[in-house]
Amino acid sequence: MSAGYVVGVDLGGTKIHAGISGPDGDLLAETRVATHGDLAGRILEVEHALVREVGVPLSAVEVTAVGGAGAAEDDGFDLHPNLDLPTGASFGPDLARHLGHPVVLENDVNVAALGELHHGVGTRHDSFVVVASGTGIGMGVVVDRRLVRGARGAAGEIGFLPLGTDPFDPAHHRRGPLEEAVAGDVLAARVPPRAHDGRSWTTTEIFDAVATDPAAAHAVAEHAHWLALALVAVRAVLDPEVVVLTGGIGSRAELLPPLRRTLDELGAADLAVRASTLGPQAPVLGAIHLARAHAPGPALEGTR
Amino acid sequence: MSAGYVVGVDLGGTKIHAGISGPDGDLLAETRVATHGDLAGRILEVEHALVREVGVPLSAVEVTAVGGAGAAEDDGFDLHPNLDLPTGASFGPDLARHLGHPVVLENDVNVAALGELHHGVGTRHDSFVVVASGTGIGMGVVVDRRLVRGARGAAGEIGFLPLGTDPFDPAHHRRGPLEEAVAGDVLAARVPPRAHDGRSWTTTEIFDAVATDPAAAHAVAEHAHWLALALVAVRAVLDPEVVVLTGGIGSRAELLPPLRRTLDELGAADLAVRASTLGPQAPVLGAIHLARAHAPGPALEGTR
Repeated sequence: MSAGYVVGVDLGGTKIHAGISGPDGDLLAETRVATHGDLAGRILEVEHALVREVGVPLSAVEVTAVGGAGAAEDDGFDLHPNLDLPTGASFGPDLARHLGHPVVLENDVNVAALGELHHGVGTRHDSFVVVASGTGIGMGVVVDRRLVRGARGAAGEIGFLPLGTDPFDPAHHRRGPLEEAVAGDVLAARVPPRAHDGRSWTTTEIFDAVATDPAAAHAVAEHAHWLALALVAVRAVLDPEVVVLTGGIGSRAELLPPLRRTLDELGAADLAVRASTLGPQAPVLGAIHLARAHAPGPALEGTR
Repeated sequence: MSAGYVVGVDLGGTKIHAGISGPDGDLLAETRVATHGDLAGRILEVEHALVREVGVPLSAVEVTAVGGAGAAEDDGFDLHPNLDLPTGASFGPDLARHLGHPVVLENDVNVAALGELHHGVGTRHDSFVVVASGTGIGMGVVVDRRLVRGARGAAGEIGFLPLGTDPFDPAHHRRGPLEEAVAGDVLAARVPPRAHDGRSWTTTEIFDAVATDPAAAHAVAEHAHWLALALVAVRAVLDPEVVVLTGGIGSRAELLPPLRRTLDELGAADLAVRASTLGPQAPVLGAIHLARAHAPGPALEGTR
């Protein structure tokens, strides 16, 4: 465990959310900026802002951990097809050169699961899954307080469950049959464009309109239908103590009633499903935890 | 770990397969008898035969572990609906009273997974699943050399995957939607009764006839179709290093070609699937391992 400062970064397709912790591991400052331009340069800017706020030099940061979409492998991310970010094989080394300290990469849902393990649902449960539903869908798996990564780093890639759309159609093998049924753009496309200006709905607008617009309510129920089937599949394989929902779609309270209704129809009414109490902070907290685990050990007393 | 003798029992619907190990853990003798009559009495007979063969008294056996269908809970098995065995809440205590030593109960596929972990595929892989397909279907899950049991002891109950038959039909909630598509009786019913005597085919006869009988080949292909979808679901959740197939159906070599063909069509040609090298011995070896783990520790040197 680190005796110094580390930074945890949640690298998303639209925004970068980062936090810094000090010697005791507490979150001291966090910031959010839009994802654009040169990614490594952008993360360097973010770290400069964080250390300025805390009042230490950038050289005080020992490790940065980055949670990003896709499986972390080698020195980059095997990028999720929903995103178009320059995070290929040279991303890790490039970022480490910019920052002047080591960089650790991890799947974004896995860092969310680590955040939940150490600061959220894991304070009461040893085995759980975190299902993140938003632009895409993914899952972090914790069994007996250990993150399950899988042989190819692809444990929890539930977008590839053979549910929701035809799993034999090669067009669905890119982002996965289930994700073809529950991705954010698919949910948005379920509601006809607005009559007065022809603009498509955003997923946020759809959830905001569930109580008043039948098409919005139907779209959310359809999403809940496929999500419930996915959770039943997850339960058959893992039997988790609890399912934690997060993400732009998964965190919406309006999702829970139709989800619970469908789980009931599937004979799985007793499956414990709840929204994350940490929400979007979970990946940053998890990335900080990961960074601290990769930091140099504490110096011997009196040596620095 | 035990310094004495233990017995491992694989308690099946049609036969009891048991083995005994000595101080060094090696299998010294094994036996198979038909499952009938008073179960505890029957297991006592089996143990008498085993200790006689090894040349020790029954009192030398320190622990018996029993792998049986269904989740092991409290002192009995929450019995799988395919079976009709008297293994309810008093089974464990009854058996311990008959035998005169402690009894440990565990799910049958879980003991098979323990056998594979210590004597089979686990000698080369740390994370794998064992899929047992026969009368019913079940799976044992090993992650980082640890058996995953699940919150209700129901991890790996893949008969409940929402695939194969309508998961919303309450009639399928008893043994599970997938099991309704891949159970042994379902496979057998896929082939019309034999013309010359009107008798239904057994699953063994169906596999034996794959090369010569189109109806048999079709039935096996249909089974492989649903099994492949199940394996793709398991992969999306766990990303195991390898899938080991076992059981009366799962161990048949004729299953692999149509299974691999379907996996290829699902974009999962690279999923490593192989037949168990231990076969029906895996549950006995796993039960012995479990029994040894529950045996009294070795005595201090010189005390006995």
